[in-house]
Amino acid sequence: MHNHHHTPTPSKAAMMRELLRSRSLSFLMEAHNGLSARIVEDVGFSGIWASGFSISTALGVRDSNEVSAGEVLDTVAYMADATRIPIMVDGDTGYGNFNNARRFVRQLCRLEVAAVCIEDKLFPKTNSFIGEHQPLADTNEFCGKITACKDSQTDDDFCVIARVEALVSGFPLAEALGRAEAYRQAGADAIFIHSKRKDGKEVLAFAKEWGRRCPLVITPTTYHRAVGVDAFEKAGISTLIWSNQNMRASMRAMREVCEEVFRNRRVSDVEPVLAPVQEVFDFLDYDELDDASRRYLPAEPDPASRRNAS
Amino acid sequence: MHNHHHTPTPSKAAMMRELLRSRSLSFLMEAHNGLSARIVEDVGFSGIWASGFSISTALGVRDSNEVSAGEVLDTVAYMADATRIPIMVDGDTGYGNFNNARRFVRQLCRLEVAAVCIEDKLFPKTNSFIGEHQPLADTNEFCGKITACKDSQTDDDFCVIARVEALVSGFPLAEALGRAEAYRQAGADAIFIHSKRKDGKEVLAFAKEWGRRCPLVITPTTYHRAVGVDAFEKAGISTLIWSNQNMRASMRAMREVCEEVFRNRRVSDVEPVLAPVQEVFDFLDYDELDDASRRYLPAEPDPASRRNAS
Amino acid sequence: MHNHHHTPTPSKAAMMRELLRSRSLSFLMEAHNGLSARIVEDVGFSGIWASGFSISTALGVRDSNEVSAGEVLDTVAYMADATRIPIMVDGDTGYGNFNNARRFVRQLCRLEVAAVCIEDKLFPKTNSFIGEHQPLADTNEFCGKITACKDSQTDDDFCVIARVEALVSGFPLAEALGRAEAYRQAGADAIFIHSKRKDGKEVLAFAKEWGRRCPLVITPTTYHRAVGVDAFEKAGISTLIWSNQNMRASMRAMREVCEEVFRNRRVSDVEPVLAPVQEVFDFLDYDELDDASRRYLPAEPDPASRRNAS
Amino acid sequence: MHNHHHTPTPSKAAMMRELLRSRSLSFLMEAHNGLSARIVEDVGFSGIWASGFSISTALGVRDSNEVSAGEVLDTVAYMADATRIPIMVDGDTGYGNFNNARRFVRQLCRLEVAAVCIEDKLFPKTNSFIGEHQPLADTNEFCGKITACKDSQTDDDFCVIARVEALVSGFPLAEALGRAEAYRQAGADAIFIHSKRKDGKEVLAFAKEWGRRCPLVITPTTYHRAVGVDAFEKAGISTLIWSNQNMRASMRAMREVCEEVFRNRRVSDVEPVLAPVQEVFDFLDYDELDDASRRYLPAEPDPASRRNAS
Repeated sequence: MHNHHHTPTPSKAAMMRELLRSRSLSFLMEAHNGLSARIVEDVGFSGIWASGFSISTALGVRDSNEVSAGEVLDTVAYMADATRIPIMVDGDTGYGNFNNARRFVRQLCRLEVAAVCIEDKLFPKTNSFIGEHQPLADTNEFCGKITACKDSQTDDDFCVIARVEALVSGFPLAEALGRAEAYRQAGADAIFIHSKRKDGKEVLAFAKEWGRRCPLVITPTTYHRAVGVDAFEKAGISTLIWSNQNMRASMRAMREVCEEVFRNRRVSDVEPVLAPVQEVFDFLDYDELDDASRRYLPAEPDPASRRNAS
Repeated sequence: MHNHHHTPTPSKAAMMRELLRSRSLSFLMEAHNGLSARIVEDVGFSGIWASGFSISTALGVRDSNEVSAGEVLDTVAYMADATRIPIMVDGDTGYGNFNNARRFVRQLCRLEVAAVCIEDKLFPKTNSFIGEHQPLADTNEFCGKITACKDSQTDDDFCVIARVEALVSGFPLAEALGRAEAYRQAGADAIFIHSKRKDGKEVLAFAKEWGRRCPLVITPTTYHRAVGVDAFEKAGISTLIWSNQNMRASMRAMREVCEEVFRNRRVSDVEPVLAPVQEVFDFLDYDELDDASRRYLPAEPDPASRRNAS
Repeated sequence: MHNHHHTPTPSKAAMMRELLRSRSLSFLMEAHNGLSARIVEDVGFSGIWASGFSISTALGVRDSNEVSAGEVLDTVAYMADATRIPIMVDGDTGYGNFNNARRFVRQLCRLEVAAVCIEDKLFPKTNSFIGEHQPLADTNEFCGKITACKDSQTDDDFCVIARVEALVSGFPLAEALGRAEAYRQAGADAIFIHSKRKDGKEVLAFAKEWGRRCPLVITPTTYHRAVGVDAFEKAGISTLIWSNQNMRASMRAMREVCEEVFRNRRVSDVEPVLAPVQEVFDFLDYDELDDASRRYLPAEPDPASRRNAS
Repeated sequence: MHNHHHTPTPSKAAMMRELLRSRSLSFLMEAHNGLSARIVEDVGFSGIWASGFSISTALGVRDSNEVSAGEVLDTVAYMADATRIPIMVDGDTGYGNFNNARRFVRQLCRLEVAAVCIEDKLFPKTNSFIGEHQPLADTNEFCGKITACKDSQTDDDFCVIARVEALVSGFPLAEALGRAEAYRQAGADAIFIHSKRKDGKEVLAFAKEWGRRCPLVITPTTYHRAVGVDAFEKAGISTLIWSNQNMRASMRAMREVCEEVFRNRRVSDVEPVLAPVQEVFDFLDYDELDDASRRYLPAEPDPASRRNAS
């Protein structure tokens, strides 16, 4: 779609690295297919969160590593093709051990994905908002996985983000800080500190203790009402992920439209909440294909030249 | 997800065949991924239209056969896995000649897809709502393609629907009727008569002349306001496709949510229009995985049995 | 390729079930892509072993679950499409826990694969001929995985074979027998008893103790010289897998041809060891495509019918 | 497999460009999967020909565009991952019109493929050695396709090779020269002049008339006995493709092994013509995985750290 010829620097990975390092709070918005990724870009976000939860939900399967790494990469490829802003891919636990994780990283680099986030749980994973006290990975094993990912990236600016699940799994702050420091020393470019408390205090406490040792990433799924983004910025958080809103918006919208159309046996009622067909054509740049057709297709094929030898 | 063990008759293809044959008007609702397909089923529709326009748009590419057959099949596989109602797949022109079309049919049958619709245009196709006077396929060649598809289906109830683009391409009713009859004689199980007029008169005129020779399928994208569904039923239409509403609803909803979140730097405003996270868990039956875990995983692994030989 | 229309009974799975139950020794020959699978069928073997080792090697990756389940299924799909004899797929450890394994089974059933073999090691696996004392899965957990696979098959005749790695991992016969019995009670249709001893005695001892409780499968990779197939048949072995010979034959042949062509800068020397191009055309039935072209393509397209409206 | 970190210049595409420009005759050897590609590299060839005929045959399907572009790319990805030498991909007719061709080019660039070859026939293609007088593409349309490919490459050194089928389709030398010149002016980096005559005279005559206007590529499938490679080099040919020998060698070897094993019910006779299992382990560098395991896995997991919160 986009003409990548003579791509200007910086690379997508360099953009992500800058975004993580920057003192100002950056926002990544969730996407789960090529269309949502392009909307995120078009609206103005600096980067995309390729959510495992959203991707699996859109595919119609559960967020329990039911789809394999290759299937996730297929989806990510469409997202990367459709956009020019950096993508951080939710790599769950890395789809196995360090060897699976590093192959995943090499394949992400090929797609010009900017970053991967891996979490310190066990494969196959369970969504963090389900149940309590999920078991964590062995710290040393997870550190080895981080190092393996870093050693395998084929773009120097590619970022590996280590997601600390200690707080979600019921461990105290000290465990989270200890793991984060170990992951940082193993090579992680940033720490994603996850929490499902509703007051956001854990995350703020973590940030205070952390003291900007490396960039912090958060997703305020449960605590977005309790703490405003300014407080996060002030606390030294680098990047905030809105982690599943596009998927949940589309799910709600599709259900409402389906129900109304099914009940009324007509679509005229729902037309006002649908993007017009012409908007689709404009958004995916059908005009470019028209222009290209004029440029690359002969106005009038020469009937003499498309023929069999006599 | 669903337990397909001891699947009761009838097959999905048999359900589609019955739906086409039935005297009462049936409705197929568009879907473009596993999630939307499952919503269509959950709301109560009898069948699913796997729209090429919607699938390509969701992937972030144009509806010009930019994605190849294999990529479309990957998406359709998720839709088929997620649902139990019959799916009619939009096969465009069959992805090449009769040989490509028949391979596509064999692969659809493997996925327990119930029907394919192929249209009498040239590969690669252009969306029917773009431009005027798009060239049509040679009638005899298209008849051969239909017969090849019928000869290749591995489920006797699988349906091949022939989509007549003559009216859309500016030909008179007689051309459309002549082609439809040729396609019927070549083995088509139903005729999809397409029109982009706003008054719906072409379709009604076609139906009148056709006289129920075989089931008729329509999609009132442009003329849904002009003619009510009762008129179509009375005119002998078998099946009506709502062809792109889920994709367009999700596109609109995602854009609005993105814009609001980007502008306000918070998600609390948009929460009311999002499906709750718990709804996702319920809809994709995470409880089944919990139950299965209790059934299939040992309560307490025997530490002595997961070990190396000493 | 094959016309699957009106496929006669029995199904591929039923053929595999019969082959396992039969008193006479059956042979499965390894294949790793569509071509090798078809050769196996053409030569007369009753069934195909879709070897994980061979598939990964042909793809150019290691037999350490470097390729994910989806990628293996892509290869298996070509093998299933190209053949009519039953395929037993090497499912390694099932690509994760019971939930991954049962999704894999559902996808195999869709491809009309006849059987899956899963082994009682940990994901990601290591090839059994590498190292010593590889850790085994917890017995109860593996039993749950077997039951989950059986509960998920969508073809009643599909077979789940449980591969016992206890002997390979250095455990005594009693451990192997205990696990095999547990797996049988969990629902396994057959037991694959694996050994890497060179004398084959372990396998014969196991078979004697086992006493035909359910069919036994073996692969004499290391002990094929020590014990003849008649002894295995007499010992009550049901099915013998030649597990990697096609891959290893192609590897050797390709290397020799490459070396000779590289050295001599000509291909005339190697022509005698190459299948003629015409043999490829015959083997993959290009004549069928010619015949089909005559049947489905018009002799002379009607220039008036492939046209734009005037 | 390979450590791509800090990849030294030149890129694979730059290597291919140099190989085409060089005055000395270069050789590309056919490969059709990761294993064969790596053998080609290991033996010493400068580059790989990813043959459409061989890839489709290995998959078990016919060389008639039965597999779609996405499926070919899946195979090419394994080949590119497994090797460091440049790959020229056989792009057939570009899988449709200019728009399909340019998407294919963008996807090849992502895989670090060095070059694509497209031929001036119609989609879906027929293998050049089947039948006579196959119809050719309209010259202007094919020129537009070449230009579209060049405009879409994302690596400046990527090469587009235009394959002239005029001689194979029974046209005189003048038609071939005229088309070649048009393709060169449209942007082709090299001309692949194809012939199925047995004496090779056509190709030599073409080369003489062409006079090194841009690099020439040939594949002496039918005329390799009549003309030695020195004569081609002297005639100004840049690059010679051995186009299908690995596939044909593996086909012959697998059939012979299968037949002998089936007949004799033992593998000891064929062992001498098989690559030893250890050779597979060495060739795909299993030692690297061992080393990496020591580097990235903890010697002794800390049992206290892989646990649930109490």
